[in-house]
Amino acid sequence: MSVYIDPAVATSLRGFEMPEKLGFGSVMAPVMFRAVCQDGCWSSGELVPYAPLSLDPAAKVLHYAQSCFEGMKAYRTPERGISLFRPERNAARLAHSAERLCMPPVPEALFMEGVRTVTAYCANLVPATSGESLYLRPFLIGTQADLTVSASTSYEFYVIASPSEAYHAGNMRVWVEREDSRAAVGGTGDAKVGGNYAASLLSIARLKKRGYDQSLWLNPGNRQTVDELSGMNFFTVMGGELHTPALNGSILEGVTRDSVIDLARDLGFTVHERAIDIDELLRQVADGTCEEAFACGTAAIISSISVFGDGGESYAVAKAPGLVAERLRQALLDIQEGRGEDRFGWMHPIEPISVD
Amino acid sequence: MSVYIDPAVATSLRGFEMPEKLGFGSVMAPVMFRAVCQDGCWSSGELVPYAPLSLDPAAKVLHYAQSCFEGMKAYRTPERGISLFRPERNAARLAHSAERLCMPPVPEALFMEGVRTVTAYCANLVPATSGESLYLRPFLIGTQADLTVSASTSYEFYVIASPSEAYHAGNMRVWVEREDSRAAVGGTGDAKVGGNYAASLLSIARLKKRGYDQSLWLNPGNRQTVDELSGMNFFTVMGGELHTPALNGSILEGVTRDSVIDLARDLGFTVHERAIDIDELLRQVADGTCEEAFACGTAAIISSISVFGDGGESYAVAKAPGLVAERLRQALLDIQEGRGEDRFGWMHPIEPISVD
Repeated sequence: MSVYIDPAVATSLRGFEMPEKLGFGSVMAPVMFRAVCQDGCWSSGELVPYAPLSLDPAAKVLHYAQSCFEGMKAYRTPERGISLFRPERNAARLAHSAERLCMPPVPEALFMEGVRTVTAYCANLVPATSGESLYLRPFLIGTQADLTVSASTSYEFYVIASPSEAYHAGNMRVWVEREDSRAAVGGTGDAKVGGNYAASLLSIARLKKRGYDQSLWLNPGNRQTVDELSGMNFFTVMGGELHTPALNGSILEGVTRDSVIDLARDLGFTVHERAIDIDELLRQVADGTCEEAFACGTAAIISSISVFGDGGESYAVAKAPGLVAERLRQALLDIQEGRGEDRFGWMHPIEPISVD
Repeated sequence: MSVYIDPAVATSLRGFEMPEKLGFGSVMAPVMFRAVCQDGCWSSGELVPYAPLSLDPAAKVLHYAQSCFEGMKAYRTPERGISLFRPERNAARLAHSAERLCMPPVPEALFMEGVRTVTAYCANLVPATSGESLYLRPFLIGTQADLTVSASTSYEFYVIASPSEAYHAGNMRVWVEREDSRAAVGGTGDAKVGGNYAASLLSIARLKKRGYDQSLWLNPGNRQTVDELSGMNFFTVMGGELHTPALNGSILEGVTRDSVIDLARDLGFTVHERAIDIDELLRQVADGTCEEAFACGTAAIISSISVFGDGGESYAVAKAPGLVAERLRQALLDIQEGRGEDRFGWMHPIEPISVD
């Protein structure tokens, strides 16, 4: 690799102590990858100690939210060492997100160099417990200091990492969000950009007060069919078959969603990608036709949904945790954590680099 | 005022040289106001030299776009010295935007202290040419270092300033944006938040290639009625009467919009706030029923629209610049720049503070 390694990286890594309690996304690895883009030209990447960014107060990202990101994980496997899961998918999606916000796509080679370098140097920080992993957060921000509403001429790309537990554990209570939207038709719903998440925070705050965990977002065009949860895609199980909202431009195409579909079909399940009407779904939950529901995402893996809340009503799902969800979760983790055969070629092994 | 003034402020101000060419939002004043909020408690404010911000790479603003801002101006008036225009309106709107993104509203007193202090110390930087001003950019960002999708526990509020020309000069060519949306129904369209602007950049880039200046955004719910332009509200003149889209939850309530409505009514114009169908409007432009169209905003003041582009067609507006738009622009600037009586009590005088 041509990446420059800052001499201080070794000291940072040697001085790092893994805390006992990880949580999600709060313990940060002591190094990060960085590359800059000026007027369309990318610098080569460098691995440096994790440290505050210096941003001009007029930087575009701070005013016009010119930012996009990815979430991915490095897993520790007993026989194959450290591996990333389908990283080329994240590279492609970051490029798609960047283009939606008029940002220069991070070249795939640079993206891969970034996630590989961080993972290789942080190999010792990849947890060994099942369900835990080194969460990687590649992100791209517009840094030009200028208050006109226009695309930045300069950008910075980073890969930071966080040894983490799963984002959600146990059954989730989801709230059918009838008022707010996370992104518009013709908006940024199929891109992983900051603004979608900002728009979702108020809904999350409201539902937490009602004892729920996540918003279930409806399509902003019809406000009647299910799109996704923030950062997670949605599945149900009915008559032993899987149903998930078809991609429609306002749903983020999850890497885990795609993998679950492939995995489920390989395990013999029928998978329907279709529009899912929320009122029909709630009736099916109420009468038990909908046997299971679950959310999936890189951070959340697969999390069963136990209850749907909608206005004054709540609807308990017949099986939570559901057997199908559990089976898929285990099958996915078996591949990711190296207990099962990598029969789809999803795992991307990383050779650890030691600084000792 | 209880604000702390960093001793280096005087040196920064004395060393500042005003460039001959200002442009908009690219020449930054050498000082800025700052206050921080931790777990809901605001610090007192301080005036410090303009300098890069230090942000943790995991700061919420960089990933989840938890950021909102305001645009306002300080004007130089021949007899009343330096004045701000309706700053309490911007304070209220920033509070509204903050609440939409689960951020703590900046207390009105702190907001006013920020814009007053920056303006008072930068009094020498307020340009004297009509149409030029000291553009103020108050903004609020979530700074907590944590990758969970949730509201930040810590925030920073800044007021930066830029001696600027008007954002737009001359007639604007606007493009009817039929594909993209800037914000969803139930989204953040009526809040001044970064994500709305990020979502607009691709449309602006596309239309610039076609020789247009600004996107005309349609309502994301019906995709048929006019909402606004990015950072500007929309008006037409028909039969000598003014028409502007009624506020509907996806339009930002512009301070200039509100002022233009009051001013126009005071000058004897009838003003209609209503839904404006885009196809009907284009027919009215084509047959001359729509005599004038213009955009207004703090940065843009009032800018006539000369052409609407829509797919393969373009529609030239009968009068551009229009006489009504020109008259309103002059009446507004007369108040802002102190040539006319401040008959609505809009001007907020600022006592300059000298560091010499």
